[in-house]
Amino acid sequence: MKKGRLEAFSDGVFAIIITIMVLEIKVPHGNRLDDLFPLLPIFLSYILSFIYLGIYWNNHHHLLHTIKEVSGDILWANLHLLFWLSLVPFVTGWMGENHFEKIPVALYGVILVLCAIAYTILQGRITKSLGPKSTLVKSLGKDWKGKGSILIYLIGIFSVNINARISLSLYLLVAIIWLVPDKRIEKSLKMEESE
Amino acid sequence: MKKGRLEAFSDGVFAIIITIMVLEIKVPHGNRLDDLFPLLPIFLSYILSFIYLGIYWNNHHHLLHTIKEVSGDILWANLHLLFWLSLVPFVTGWMGENHFEKIPVALYGVILVLCAIAYTILQGRITKSLGPKSTLVKSLGKDWKGKGSILIYLIGIFSVNINARISLSLYLLVAIIWLVPDKRIEKSLKMEESE
Amino acid sequence: MKKGRLEAFSDGVFAIIITIMVLEIKVPHGNRLDDLFPLLPIFLSYILSFIYLGIYWNNHHHLLHTIKEVSGDILWANLHLLFWLSLVPFVTGWMGENHFEKIPVALYGVILVLCAIAYTILQGRITKSLGPKSTLVKSLGKDWKGKGSILIYLIGIFSVNINARISLSLYLLVAIIWLVPDKRIEKSLKMEESE
Amino acid sequence: MKKGRLEAFSDGVFAIIITIMVLEIKVPHGNRLDDLFPLLPIFLSYILSFIYLGIYWNNHHHLLHTIKEVSGDILWANLHLLFWLSLVPFVTGWMGENHFEKIPVALYGVILVLCAIAYTILQGRITKSLGPKSTLVKSLGKDWKGKGSILIYLIGIFSVNINARISLSLYLLVAIIWLVPDKRIEKSLKMEESE
Repeated sequence: MKKGRLEAFSDGVFAIIITIMVLEIKVPHGNRLDDLFPLLPIFLSYILSFIYLGIYWNNHHHLLHTIKEVSGDILWANLHLLFWLSLVPFVTGWMGENHFEKIPVALYGVILVLCAIAYTILQGRITKSLGPKSTLVKSLGKDWKGKGSILIYLIGIFSVNINARISLSLYLLVAIIWLVPDKRIEKSLKMEESE
Repeated sequence: MKKGRLEAFSDGVFAIIITIMVLEIKVPHGNRLDDLFPLLPIFLSYILSFIYLGIYWNNHHHLLHTIKEVSGDILWANLHLLFWLSLVPFVTGWMGENHFEKIPVALYGVILVLCAIAYTILQGRITKSLGPKSTLVKSLGKDWKGKGSILIYLIGIFSVNINARISLSLYLLVAIIWLVPDKRIEKSLKMEESE
Repeated sequence: MKKGRLEAFSDGVFAIIITIMVLEIKVPHGNRLDDLFPLLPIFLSYILSFIYLGIYWNNHHHLLHTIKEVSGDILWANLHLLFWLSLVPFVTGWMGENHFEKIPVALYGVILVLCAIAYTILQGRITKSLGPKSTLVKSLGKDWKGKGSILIYLIGIFSVNINARISLSLYLLVAIIWLVPDKRIEKSLKMEESE
Repeated sequence: MKKGRLEAFSDGVFAIIITIMVLEIKVPHGNRLDDLFPLLPIFLSYILSFIYLGIYWNNHHHLLHTIKEVSGDILWANLHLLFWLSLVPFVTGWMGENHFEKIPVALYGVILVLCAIAYTILQGRITKSLGPKSTLVKSLGKDWKGKGSILIYLIGIFSVNINARISLSLYLLVAIIWLVPDKRIEKSLKMEESE
């Protein structure tokens, strides 16, 4: 039951973060198609952030599925993740309004890195609570996927000095990697059931 | 349990989308009834979108009722639907602020079509997971209702060149068709229970 | 289960409506206490609306507690209620910004009447689905409380021509009447359990 | 079941309050890092309020965990708490925009005191409903933690006359005290289980 409330609260925050980003796409005054063109970068950055939040929600869903009890540790690690995710609408808006210029694209990457680190911490607390022999720990292995994502983000952030499009391509690459649902956890769940 | 969280998250997004639209109806500075008249088109477009979102929530409710497990496919098909629905407040605001002029009315229709297509995809994934012999598949039949709606929307979009009122009437027509709850799914549920 | 989702969705809408009203209390530019005084009427109208929404949520809670299955009728009667409630932040903001002047106070009353009528319709659908012999129907009796509220609202609306303070006092009177939780439904629930 | 809905509604309000605060961090027009510096005080006040709301959500979670039935008293005591918490985004924004000046910092403290009092009232109603012999009552003892927090807030509010930084340090001190999850209630829960 405790877990249910953590999920409900997190779902609420996820739902609001996703929907708040739409508020950045402000209704233009004109009534022609041309009046929408300036909104294109904001729209594109909205799509990217929507996909990212969808991925986080999806993986969050999988991760919490494996636990039964929520300790204070996990509760705060979860709030810490939600904190960084709550800043995604801000950096999305800034990046979109400035047409994907250097610094905003870099800051977007910084927030993505911080979200990824917060997710890794939450994952760490959960695997710790499950014990070293749990199937989740086994299936995560050395967590190359998580570590690799953070590395790609970092390369992306420094790439703005060359070209912000490289950074965006790298951010997109991580999204594509994660769009594939985390088979490791799904596998772990099936292993558990069959035991 | 997995399904419960998908529903909770979707309900959250539905609730926020519906309520965010009200923010487009901005409090006027004057204090007379006349000061409210300019808000009338925004109010009317709010009613139309509220009905649409109510219909989607209602049918979403019915659709998810038939499944037990949520696969990655269904999860992303659901997020895809929520993405297009999340743009409804924007096009509602644009259409209302421009007093139902050609292009905004057409764009409103485009978003409605994209929502309808996203809903059809979600429905397809769910019927696929249920198998060809499921009562849901049987009761949906050739899904004339879904296909017909998309056709009427498309006629509506192109009708803006004649008169935007025709388009709006066609959008309203689809809403009325769907206001009647989807008897096919209700029937399918009853058939399942009686089996 | 069906009922659970209706409740979850309604709770979401209630929570968002309540919280959206706070956005009307805009952060002033100055940093002295004097800069907050102009916000006082907005704050007072926020308190009144917060109490109203609390009452509606409370009674909604009681009302839905008595049913098991949700029909299409009840679903749409519920959405209809949420529609009028969703306009409360708008009329609250308008009334507050105009320092409780005639027309905004009257419109606030009009929305309260429409909410009350929508609630009565929802109550009617629910009692109809429960049948004439249900304890809920018996305990509601002739529903003097509901009918009386609508009457007081109407007197309140027309009282703005004399003095808007009379109207506000009448709105507050209804709130106080309803602040007492609906003993009739609580009684009915206990009767049901003891049967 | 009744309790479930109270929790769901409260979680919704908590989630929205937390996320609404982000809207105060408005996207700047420039695209350089320098353009973000003016947002620093707003960002810092956001962090402080985020921690506070996290603490309240966490303790709210623990508190409601101990009860089974929700009476009208508890329902309204809960709404009363949510009311004061709903004003946190406003005072956070005011304090941030005015770079932690005297009066806004004092008002922030006033709202914290009112939240703390509302929480104490809710706790009182719950302990009353559980009876004097309940383990929750025993483990709370004289509730030095709750009373102490209110005292520190009050000292903090009056300290703005000396230096607003002292006030902020005191507010932060209370946050740190509460960041440690309420062992008393956890202990009480374990005692109950072992009985």
